[in-house]
Amino acid sequence: MPSPSNNSPGSTPLNRNPYGHGTQVSDFLSNVSRFKIIESTLREGEQFANAFFDTQKKIQIATALDEFGVDYIELTNPCASEQSRLDCEAICRLGLKAKVLAHIRCHMDDARVAVATGVDGVNVMIGTSSLMRQHSHGKDMEYIKRTAVEVISYLKTQGVEVRFSTEDSFRSDLVDLLSIYAAVDQAGVHRVGVADTIGCASPRQVYELIRVLRGVVSCDIETHFHDDAGCAIANAYCALEAGATHIDTSVLGIGERNGITPLGGLMARMVGTHPEYVKEKYRLDRIKEIEDLVAEAVQVNIPFNNPITGFCAFTHKAGIHAKAILNDPSTYEIINPADFGMARYVHFASRLTGWNAIRSRAQQLNISMTDEQCKECTAKIKALADIRPLAIDDADSIIRAYYRNIQSGETP
Amino acid sequence: MPSPSNNSPGSTPLNRNPYGHGTQVSDFLSNVSRFKIIESTLREGEQFANAFFDTQKKIQIATALDEFGVDYIELTNPCASEQSRLDCEAICRLGLKAKVLAHIRCHMDDARVAVATGVDGVNVMIGTSSLMRQHSHGKDMEYIKRTAVEVISYLKTQGVEVRFSTEDSFRSDLVDLLSIYAAVDQAGVHRVGVADTIGCASPRQVYELIRVLRGVVSCDIETHFHDDAGCAIANAYCALEAGATHIDTSVLGIGERNGITPLGGLMARMVGTHPEYVKEKYRLDRIKEIEDLVAEAVQVNIPFNNPITGFCAFTHKAGIHAKAILNDPSTYEIINPADFGMARYVHFASRLTGWNAIRSRAQQLNISMTDEQCKECTAKIKALADIRPLAIDDADSIIRAYYRNIQSGETP
Repeated sequence: MPSPSNNSPGSTPLNRNPYGHGTQVSDFLSNVSRFKIIESTLREGEQFANAFFDTQKKIQIATALDEFGVDYIELTNPCASEQSRLDCEAICRLGLKAKVLAHIRCHMDDARVAVATGVDGVNVMIGTSSLMRQHSHGKDMEYIKRTAVEVISYLKTQGVEVRFSTEDSFRSDLVDLLSIYAAVDQAGVHRVGVADTIGCASPRQVYELIRVLRGVVSCDIETHFHDDAGCAIANAYCALEAGATHIDTSVLGIGERNGITPLGGLMARMVGTHPEYVKEKYRLDRIKEIEDLVAEAVQVNIPFNNPITGFCAFTHKAGIHAKAILNDPSTYEIINPADFGMARYVHFASRLTGWNAIRSRAQQLNISMTDEQCKECTAKIKALADIRPLAIDDADSIIRAYYRNIQSGETP
Repeated sequence: MPSPSNNSPGSTPLNRNPYGHGTQVSDFLSNVSRFKIIESTLREGEQFANAFFDTQKKIQIATALDEFGVDYIELTNPCASEQSRLDCEAICRLGLKAKVLAHIRCHMDDARVAVATGVDGVNVMIGTSSLMRQHSHGKDMEYIKRTAVEVISYLKTQGVEVRFSTEDSFRSDLVDLLSIYAAVDQAGVHRVGVADTIGCASPRQVYELIRVLRGVVSCDIETHFHDDAGCAIANAYCALEAGATHIDTSVLGIGERNGITPLGGLMARMVGTHPEYVKEKYRLDRIKEIEDLVAEAVQVNIPFNNPITGFCAFTHKAGIHAKAILNDPSTYEIINPADFGMARYVHFASRLTGWNAIRSRAQQLNISMTDEQCKECTAKIKALADIRPLAIDDADSIIRAYYRNIQSGETP
């Protein structure tokens, strides 16, 4: 949908809805039409309860993500285990278009091992909330700042891209947080990272914090959102609106607990907002295949309500929905299923069925009936659907039987 | 977490984080600590592809929702089918604490049938976007306004609660939208409804529209969010922040396409923000049972990543996460699993396992080891976990074998 400018003199807005979809005045801070993806299925995703990826599976996943078009692929800390280190080297040797990142603790030992694997960049992180400082690493802010600058300086001499992220950023003291981000920005880090490690952040908190941070640092801003409270996609979107540049995702959102912003779900959000950017940059038709690959590897089913690939994501059932969808799909769809290689389905076998859906189904069956006949046939289907669940076959049988009766001249 | 006031003179903020969790200055508009739930599993949920509820199942679901503590239960239009009408009457006769609502089209015929069923309130809706007007009902705004006032006036004479909702509100012309809401507010409607029927709205759009509407009408504001772009929980939250009073939910979010704001997911969001209100008002420990009931009725599995009840919602895996969680669960949990009758689980059988998790597991097994021994034992577990996935039994066997070796004086 074109975005009519409310600023150009003499222009007539198509639709007076400043808060509506696709009609906002463009926002200077917003990166919703130019974001980058840091795909973390092979790091955050490896922290998912069911995840065990052997080398072959990691290579298969990294390759699929690269073909999809993600900008970065983040890998588990090569210090986590010997195999983690070897796998990191193997993925670096693939020569992917995507940049390969190692995720490490803020520590010189980790930094040296990471560089030696041949990664393009290193994602450094440390907890900064008082809870994390007390119960996780036990370090104070001065120590954190000193170590951060030491690790960053070393990594920069090694010619890799460097990100510095705090952990549990939304429960950290704001002054401490901005102070450390300003220090690492000065030290020449390429990106700072903001992480809602426990999934407590809400969209407007995210917007406010990122907007302030945008005014404090000049480097890129990466964000990482957990989904405990169901806001991981929305938080990522609001972060981009406030000026964040990079979003962390994983396939199906897999990660610690119930995970992070899912790659497919983020695509659903962004394609509804900026179809041109998303469709040009990413191979959306690969989403289903990638989700199936990862779901099988970690032995889960695709959630029935998954954005885009859930089995009913494009199924329309109620009579008035079906009628409008048959006239013009955009009435009830913000996403075109064809962009993702998926198909639309209009349900026509329930007590909520309207006669427009039955007329459409009859046409699919090459059965020609008048509107009156369609309505009478619909009443028969609804009457049976009131008694028991109907399969498609059941509804088709009723349509066919009704039509046969008309043809044979019997009163249907 | 208490909310330190930044306004009272002389107070020392506990944590300088104005954007953080639980530390915001309280907001005059916000209803996040006093919202009401309109539970629509038996209306929106019936529009889910797999849904077929017979009378008994509807009564079972309505009763469970009533015991959980929802404020309203919304039912399918009694004009949808004869059985829908009879079921509506049956549920009205249950004498639930929750108010029973019928959802109808903006039409006098529907209104009369709804009132005759004995419902406490009627939820009237009509599409107002140009797309809906063109492809669904084909009516203009003047006609909509006239009919709305006629239907509302009739319903008020019948002593029922009346809500008037537009459909596809976020793609409607703002002037048309506010004009019709102002008209129905004047006509004495109890609630207006804002519906993101196609799931296109983003959190800050929602906040802005509801905030403006809050200044235009004096009645309550109900909101309804579809989840096509994964923002249905976040949008509900932002609507409450802007002054909305009622949120539509369904169990597991079931509804048209991939559904709406899920009841359990909304609880996850709200309990992290306002635990007192949510825990006092709603029987959170019933969520799992209600989700299981509905999942079985519509033949779906609980999504692996479902908030709260997903199988890994409270599972912690990475070494540093496990260490902190064992010290203090609030380091990595915004939600206490016990509030929902669920349990926490610290994963200790992977290549990401840290020695703190192994020490904790050894203690659970009544095995006493020094920290050094725990670290050595952890290295053995990680080495095996690098080669193949480990079951809990595998890790326990290694711990026990290691301990036996120590006991027998062998070099482990």
